[in-house]
Amino acid sequence: MRITILTIFPEMFEGFLNTSIIKKARLKNIVEINVADFRQYTKDKHHRVDEYPFGGGQGMVLMCQPILDCLNDVRRENSHVILTNPTGEKFVQAKAHQLLEYDDIVIICGHYEGYDARISDYVDEEISIGDYILTGGELGAMVITDAVTRLVEGVISADSIEDETFENGLLEYPQYTKPVEYDGKTVPEVLLSGHHENIRKFRLYESLKKTLQLRPDLLENRELTAEESRMLEQIREELAAEEK
Amino acid sequence: MRITILTIFPEMFEGFLNTSIIKKARLKNIVEINVADFRQYTKDKHHRVDEYPFGGGQGMVLMCQPILDCLNDVRRENSHVILTNPTGEKFVQAKAHQLLEYDDIVIICGHYEGYDARISDYVDEEISIGDYILTGGELGAMVITDAVTRLVEGVISADSIEDETFENGLLEYPQYTKPVEYDGKTVPEVLLSGHHENIRKFRLYESLKKTLQLRPDLLENRELTAEESRMLEQIREELAAEEK
Repeated sequence: MRITILTIFPEMFEGFLNTSIIKKARLKNIVEINVADFRQYTKDKHHRVDEYPFGGGQGMVLMCQPILDCLNDVRRENSHVILTNPTGEKFVQAKAHQLLEYDDIVIICGHYEGYDARISDYVDEEISIGDYILTGGELGAMVITDAVTRLVEGVISADSIEDETFENGLLEYPQYTKPVEYDGKTVPEVLLSGHHENIRKFRLYESLKKTLQLRPDLLENRELTAEESRMLEQIREELAAEEK
Repeated sequence: MRITILTIFPEMFEGFLNTSIIKKARLKNIVEINVADFRQYTKDKHHRVDEYPFGGGQGMVLMCQPILDCLNDVRRENSHVILTNPTGEKFVQAKAHQLLEYDDIVIICGHYEGYDARISDYVDEEISIGDYILTGGELGAMVITDAVTRLVEGVISADSIEDETFENGLLEYPQYTKPVEYDGKTVPEVLLSGHHENIRKFRLYESLKKTLQLRPDLLENRELTAEESRMLEQIREELAAEEK
C-alpha cells in the first residue's frame, strides 16, 4: 500500500514516520508513506496557499490551485483521495478496514479556517476523526494512516488485532502485569490460576461489563452468543443489586 | 496553562510542538507543553516498561512502576490527569472547552497492547479520541493538546472560533476564495454581491442544509431560532421535491 499526504507542514510528520509500528512498516517496505508539500505547487508570487474568503469572514481559505496541482502530480489512476474535514464521515475502526482495499491512498490535510469548497469535487470522500476542531488536518491524516497501516498484513500479528477494543465489538477487558502487588493493589486471583477456561470467562465477563457501563451503544448493534447473553443478564442483576 | 505528556516516544512530538498554532502558543508563553519520557523512570535493569500479561494473551502490557513514578515526578497538586484509552470517554469539542478550566493537565499515552489496569486508579479520567485503534496514545495526546491549546485565550482570535463547525452546533458553511472561476466551477454569486444580509442568510442556509444531510443528530440537541426553523422547513421541502 502507498499513502501520500498533502500538507503545508511536512515537518510535522517526521517523528510520526520514524517511530514504532509506522517506522517498521516502512522499513519492511510493506507500506510506503510519502509527504508532499503543496505550498511548493503554488503559482502565487508570494508563495501563498490561502486567500480571504469571498463574502467576508474570519480567517483565510486554502485555494484550489496549489492543492489540486499537487494532487494531480501525486495521484495515480487507482488513487483513493481523502480530504480530512470535521464535517466529513466519522472515522471508525470499520472504516480503517475498508480502506485496506485500496492500493493507493492520498490524504489531503485541510486547515481549520477552511478550504475552497470546490476542492471537494476532486476527492472521493471527506473523513472526520472526531467531533472536535484541530488546527489542521495533519493529526487527522496521521490517525488515518496509523489506524490503516497497523491493519496491513505483515505489520503486526493478526492475533494481536483480534482481541482489541472494537475489533470484536466489545471494549477490551482489563490487563494486568508484574508485580502481583503494586501500592497495595493486587491482580485478580483468577489471572494467576493458570486455569484457561476461567480466565477466558473472567475476561469475557469484564469485557461485557465495561462495555455495558461505558458504551452500551456497542451492545445494541452486536449479535450476542448464548454465553454472552447469560453473562449480560447476570451483570445487569449484579449492577442493580449494587445500586440498592 | 501547562500540559505535560508522558510517553515512551518523545521524538514523535518534536514536529507537533514546533509547527503552526502550537508553536506560536508556546513561544508567546501562553501554553507550556512538556514531554516526559517515562522509560527513563523504569527500575527494570533492561530498561523495559512493559511485561507479559498475567493470564496469558498477545502483546505486552505497560507496567505500573515507570508510568506512576514519572507521574509522581511531574504532577502538581492541581494537576488534572488524563489517560488516553480507546475505552475512555469520547473526546468532543465541549470536552475541549471543559478542560480549559484546569491550569495543569497531564496526559499519559497508553499503548495499543494495553496497560496495567491499576494505573486507572491514579488518573482523573480516561479519554478516547474516537472509535478506532491506534499504535499508541501519542496521537490522542496531540489531538487533545491541539484542540485545547487553540481555545486558550490569546492563541487565536475569538471571532475565528465562533464560526466553526461544532462551536455553534452546526457544520460550517462552504467557503470560497479566489479565483471566481476555477476549472469551470464558479463561486456562488451571492458571495460576490457585497450584500451582507443575503450572505449571512446564504451561509446559515448552507450550514443548516449540510448539517441536516450529514449530521442530523446535531440538530436534535439544538434549540433553533425562528429563522432557523423556517429555513429548515424550506430545506426539507426542497430536498423532498428533489427526490421526486
